[in-house]
Amino acid sequence: MQIFLYDTTLRDGTQREGLSLSVEDKLKITMMLDELGIHYIEGGWPGSNPKDAEYFQRVRETPLRQARVAAFGSTRRAGGQCEDDANIQALVAAQTPVVTLVGKSSVLHVEQVLETTRAENLAMIGESVAYFKALGKEVCYDAEHFFDGYKLDADYALSTLRAATEAGADVLVLCDTNGGSLPHEVAAITRVVRAQIGASATQIGIHTHNDGALAVANAMAAVQEGATQVQGTINGYGERCGNMDLIPTIANLQLKLGYSCVTPEQLARLSELSHYVAAIANLNPDDHAAYVGRSAFAHKGGIHVAAIAKVEHSYQHIDPTLVGNQKRVVVSELSGRGNIRLRAEELGLHLNGNERDVLQQIKERESKGYQFEAAEGSFEMLVRRSAADYVPPFELLDFTVTVEKRGNNEITALATVKVRVGNELMHTAADGEGPVDALDAAIRKALLPHYPQLAEVRLVDFKVRIIDAHLGTAATPRVLIESARGDERWSTTGASPNIIAASYQALWDSLELPLLRELIRK
Amino acid sequence: MQIFLYDTTLRDGTQREGLSLSVEDKLKITMMLDELGIHYIEGGWPGSNPKDAEYFQRVRETPLRQARVAAFGSTRRAGGQCEDDANIQALVAAQTPVVTLVGKSSVLHVEQVLETTRAENLAMIGESVAYFKALGKEVCYDAEHFFDGYKLDADYALSTLRAATEAGADVLVLCDTNGGSLPHEVAAITRVVRAQIGASATQIGIHTHNDGALAVANAMAAVQEGATQVQGTINGYGERCGNMDLIPTIANLQLKLGYSCVTPEQLARLSELSHYVAAIANLNPDDHAAYVGRSAFAHKGGIHVAAIAKVEHSYQHIDPTLVGNQKRVVVSELSGRGNIRLRAEELGLHLNGNERDVLQQIKERESKGYQFEAAEGSFEMLVRRSAADYVPPFELLDFTVTVEKRGNNEITALATVKVRVGNELMHTAADGEGPVDALDAAIRKALLPHYPQLAEVRLVDFKVRIIDAHLGTAATPRVLIESARGDERWSTTGASPNIIAASYQALWDSLELPLLRELIRK
Repeated sequence: MQIFLYDTTLRDGTQREGLSLSVEDKLKITMMLDELGIHYIEGGWPGSNPKDAEYFQRVRETPLRQARVAAFGSTRRAGGQCEDDANIQALVAAQTPVVTLVGKSSVLHVEQVLETTRAENLAMIGESVAYFKALGKEVCYDAEHFFDGYKLDADYALSTLRAATEAGADVLVLCDTNGGSLPHEVAAITRVVRAQIGASATQIGIHTHNDGALAVANAMAAVQEGATQVQGTINGYGERCGNMDLIPTIANLQLKLGYSCVTPEQLARLSELSHYVAAIANLNPDDHAAYVGRSAFAHKGGIHVAAIAKVEHSYQHIDPTLVGNQKRVVVSELSGRGNIRLRAEELGLHLNGNERDVLQQIKERESKGYQFEAAEGSFEMLVRRSAADYVPPFELLDFTVTVEKRGNNEITALATVKVRVGNELMHTAADGEGPVDALDAAIRKALLPHYPQLAEVRLVDFKVRIIDAHLGTAATPRVLIESARGDERWSTTGASPNIIAASYQALWDSLELPLLRELIRK
Repeated sequence: MQIFLYDTTLRDGTQREGLSLSVEDKLKITMMLDELGIHYIEGGWPGSNPKDAEYFQRVRETPLRQARVAAFGSTRRAGGQCEDDANIQALVAAQTPVVTLVGKSSVLHVEQVLETTRAENLAMIGESVAYFKALGKEVCYDAEHFFDGYKLDADYALSTLRAATEAGADVLVLCDTNGGSLPHEVAAITRVVRAQIGASATQIGIHTHNDGALAVANAMAAVQEGATQVQGTINGYGERCGNMDLIPTIANLQLKLGYSCVTPEQLARLSELSHYVAAIANLNPDDHAAYVGRSAFAHKGGIHVAAIAKVEHSYQHIDPTLVGNQKRVVVSELSGRGNIRLRAEELGLHLNGNERDVLQQIKERESKGYQFEAAEGSFEMLVRRSAADYVPPFELLDFTVTVEKRGNNEITALATVKVRVGNELMHTAADGEGPVDALDAAIRKALLPHYPQLAEVRLVDFKVRIIDAHLGTAATPRVLIESARGDERWSTTGASPNIIAASYQALWDSLELPLLRELIRK
């Protein structure tokens, strides 16, 4: 059976604290969602956010394959008319094929928040839906607080749905607005709705939030009771604890329950979709996200690694390639030579009998505080440097970093470095926000004339962890750096009682790695 | 009905990529879990990790209120004897009241991974359980891959449970090891197990993983079918996509389904528990975590804010104070003056009408990245410095820190500081293991002639967390220092894009605090 995917990343998703998207960002995400088979894209709330008008204008000029764009807004004001309701008219002006209208299902909200009568609320729903049906729109009716309202007064909650259906709504979307419902409640109430409204051709939709860590389960429970539209966001972005995450829901419905959501080719780009939206939103992807996280199919324990070497699916719930992810063997001091070889092969590298040497170096460095399991880039560098034909693209010879405070002046950070590239010696200096930032700037200044492509390499994450913390300021900091160039990502590490030295080691690896990878490609 | 909480943060949780805990960390978490009502604490796998032996030895000397410590291990090797099985004997040596044994439920794993016979696997389960029952232990039997195994061969999977029950296992824990099961499957299979094993007194437990974003829902489905032990980790830490998160599961079971898990007072510290474990693990807490995240009850949208002003629970699924969290309106500043007064009084300090001033300073510093939750010492310093009669025992005027590398020589770190004590100017210099260590040494050198008692002040912990990590090397490090003098302990903090500046602020507080406390005592 076909399930229709309704994405509200651009509207409800941006309610997440700290997340905001430009019109440009929204258009990029729209095109990606369309390409990957999302059926409905809710672009914004033109009545509440004037910026959204520009989006709706520009998206009309954007050719989409199949996705239908929806504008979101509430039913008309109490005591008013659709014709002169600013919010309703903003929805008209958006000129979308789909309009999603949110209305009240709960007597608490009708009487105490909206401060109107039950009858007027039914009229607001019916007239607003009818107004857009008369304009030829597809209308989704979002029944706000439906499950909570049903528990307060089931008859009234059902009567609001009837008002929408009788006015011609195409989809009745049951919303768990506060996100606190449980799967068995969602299932039972959806079953009642289907029985009551089932005679009509109206489809049922489900819109859930994650306040009980149950948003995906709640959406699936509704689908199993006959809902055919699922509303959510990419990566579960949204207010409070987030909206239902479409990513695992799509994978669960399609791979585990046999529903059709997208094509297998689109499903195989689910990881890409998740990472792409995170990148546009300027948020770090969740490494532990179901199906698409970097760690979702990572195996650390020696027993698990040994088992998957025998039977690939022994510790995996699905084949990760179905969702565009991959199995990953995590390298750590507990691993043996088999792990090292497997890991190197995954990176497309050959050890040519160097396993023992590389393992030896890993153990030595881990005893000094390095940790390679989260730093695949540094592991890759160890392997590459152990090759017989390795030629370093540059060498860091000397550096000095000075941090200074004089009275009430701003604290300054200055770095100087001496770098050899081929036969040339580069001597550079730079200021920075702090000592590591200054060091990074000085090294790049020395390398850029020779390797202009390093301008595209960005540091996207910087972590410090103190090991042996009980040694106080003499403890060993371990630095982890994540770098990116376009879609490519790598993480590198360094460890030393001197935090500047640890950062310097991680920085070195992070800048040398893309140069070596490029050489090989040529 | 009572539900027993079984925490495996210290064992399965540490399988999370990038997470590692020292023995000291593990003991701290153990005490917190015990205080907050967790019934079972799985401390480690002594047979696979030699470091765990030290934990089990030290936890025996730690007085716990009610929690029972469990050691984890697998059933004996195929073809062997419990008496000479290294893994089994490591469990014996751990001397815990509870032993948790993991065994195979799935014919795939028995035949293709373990490469033994179905009959031998049953003998391994039965003999291993009986061995520990004969030693007087409480035995939890973890049925690995139970749901997957049941789907492959239900009769065999059930026979493994019977082998454990007949040997005297106290709890049969159904494990969704690969994390891919769905709630309706977990419910149906748990129902069968209850029907088949229900006659015995054996309890049913549930252990789930989050690979389908359904771990909490799966655990709840099992509880609704009669499971009475739930196994999970704090914050859902764990391999791949993580284990079931105990935090929302406890809240859901207790607040929504009426089960008893912990006391209401313990429940009201759920947010604290989540943040405490994140701090020890040196991971940023998830702001969007259900129930306990900083954003879990944050309201951004104007309509929602207006509604909650009228009816508090109109957009909240529970009262946030039940789990120690709070409602937060994102744009406006909510007054926390009452909080400040309460905290100061807990420290034996009086604010004398300075609440507003101290609150202002806290807000200003928190906006720069400070966090006072885990740094009571720095909060105390804010309060003390705001007093009308405050006289600083010393002032740090200038400092310079230089880190230098010349060719293959050791990297050096040197600090010079200028400090005023009374009318005297002290100008000192010192080397260190790193820049912060050098700075600490130079400051102490300047202060010791005036305050010889500082020789007794030790730095016992030093942590660095990067906030805004996506800014790369220009991100803001937050430093947390824990200091001690005899039995007295205090923690201080600093934050700045310059890590040396952040450390310097935390160091200053850490050295001034004991001097001020002493002055007051005199």
